[in-house]
Amino acid sequence: MTAQEMKDELRALAAMVEGRLATIFADGGTPAPLVASMEYSLMAGGKRLRPALCLAWAELAGGTTAKVLDFACAIECIHTYSLIHDDLPAMDDDDLRRGKPSNHKQFDEATAILAGDGLLTEAFTLASSLELPAQRVLQAIFHLSTSAGPRGMVGGQVLDMGLTGKSATLPQLREMHAKKTGALIESSCITGCILGGGNSFDQARASEYGRAVGLAFQVTDDILDVVGDTASLGKPAGSDEAQGKSTYPALLGIDRSRGLARESVNQALAALDGLEHPRAGFLRAVARYILDRKS
Amino acid sequence: MTAQEMKDELRALAAMVEGRLATIFADGGTPAPLVASMEYSLMAGGKRLRPALCLAWAELAGGTTAKVLDFACAIECIHTYSLIHDDLPAMDDDDLRRGKPSNHKQFDEATAILAGDGLLTEAFTLASSLELPAQRVLQAIFHLSTSAGPRGMVGGQVLDMGLTGKSATLPQLREMHAKKTGALIESSCITGCILGGGNSFDQARASEYGRAVGLAFQVTDDILDVVGDTASLGKPAGSDEAQGKSTYPALLGIDRSRGLARESVNQALAALDGLEHPRAGFLRAVARYILDRKS
Repeated sequence: MTAQEMKDELRALAAMVEGRLATIFADGGTPAPLVASMEYSLMAGGKRLRPALCLAWAELAGGTTAKVLDFACAIECIHTYSLIHDDLPAMDDDDLRRGKPSNHKQFDEATAILAGDGLLTEAFTLASSLELPAQRVLQAIFHLSTSAGPRGMVGGQVLDMGLTGKSATLPQLREMHAKKTGALIESSCITGCILGGGNSFDQARASEYGRAVGLAFQVTDDILDVVGDTASLGKPAGSDEAQGKSTYPALLGIDRSRGLARESVNQALAALDGLEHPRAGFLRAVARYILDRKS
Repeated sequence: MTAQEMKDELRALAAMVEGRLATIFADGGTPAPLVASMEYSLMAGGKRLRPALCLAWAELAGGTTAKVLDFACAIECIHTYSLIHDDLPAMDDDDLRRGKPSNHKQFDEATAILAGDGLLTEAFTLASSLELPAQRVLQAIFHLSTSAGPRGMVGGQVLDMGLTGKSATLPQLREMHAKKTGALIESSCITGCILGGGNSFDQARASEYGRAVGLAFQVTDDILDVVGDTASLGKPAGSDEAQGKSTYPALLGIDRSRGLARESVNQALAALDGLEHPRAGFLRAVARYILDRKS
């Protein structure tokens, strides 16, 4: 699959996810100002990479996107809540997110805190309403909450705060990123695989792929932050270093960082070895694209 | 059952809950500063009313406390997260909680936001690891997340913000409280009943009881806030009115507010009509106690 075909497929999956995200608060049970604040961030664009990985792995494991769509949307709700809370004045204090005012700038701080809380909680309402075998759904919920919670993403955010302004060691940097961003990416793959009916061998592949892709993504993000002429992830170039955060290039230099990214992508490709399903081609193209992306 | 016997039984259930809460982060997967912050609030005391209601309804419906304990702890995690986020400077800006520095005062604001996020997410890890029929557990998770999320507690908090400084109508006040505090109390009863194996008739009783108890609790809380010589819920007397929040006594006067509380307690008792199980006696005593409490 070419990079262009992959992008088209990613856009199609993103459109499916956005179509559903736009309707989750349409039942009228949620106060309007809260809906406005949640939807402001939820519908603000983005590649929808995590839900796309979930849907692709679900199909690869034998499931359908229709049956797994609400779980993929749950993952995007969690990703969005984490961005809203990360931007708060007490956290990264970012006024902009994807070129628009961040949630607490557009609304106010209290509303932004509650919009994040609301999206995080809503994720589990979406996840628990899937029409799939209950045991499978429970296993996926356990996985998602563990990777998003104190042992995963929330814990990684705390580790990141502890490292800011200090020079981290490579193992510290890897552990922090594995929790802060890696865990949810890995969980997107594994939960998709579980919900699609994958066995433990398939799940091990999904885990390996997700972990490797997450690491490659973070390393290339750090590289783009240093060398990119376009800003990566909406941040001005050099912003992480300027904020006193350790990065892979700062620790390893650019060349060894590029080597680490390449090695991780190869690991992700190896996890897909021998799989013929069309979605395996998509997942390979996603992994390869990470190396070549310019933003 | 006498009030004293009820208090002893409540203390026994609270001790069981606290025993489990003290171990949930003992597996070592969570960064120490985050554990410290979450446990600071989680182990800060309180009556543990919500998990006790969950456990009592589970037994009443034919289940065991042992099998439902982790779900009861999940409810307490959600209650605790809501207190941490409510106390934040951007929200109620409370420096004290139960006579101790609030979480963001003891730690810092970023840590308090993350401790709340962590506890909320952990609730679903606990809930999804129950060893009970998966379909039942999923139904309880759906119920809990709905009542805690945008259609419930988080939505109620947004309504409360919208009413502050204005004079609310009685229907507005009731809707706000039904979501902000009522939904989680009601859900504690219903989810206990579901997990204990209760049928839809039992669940309707649990819902009726929980809704009535939640309303009675809020009305007496407002009354104590006005007339109490001891502070209710750790707040100085009159603090809600001083903060520009509408209360039942302000809208209805003290006498009609007392009448509304009595009526709600009678409704809660009616929901238990004809039940002989020992836990029904406990639940009756809890409902009656709400009327007589002095703090």
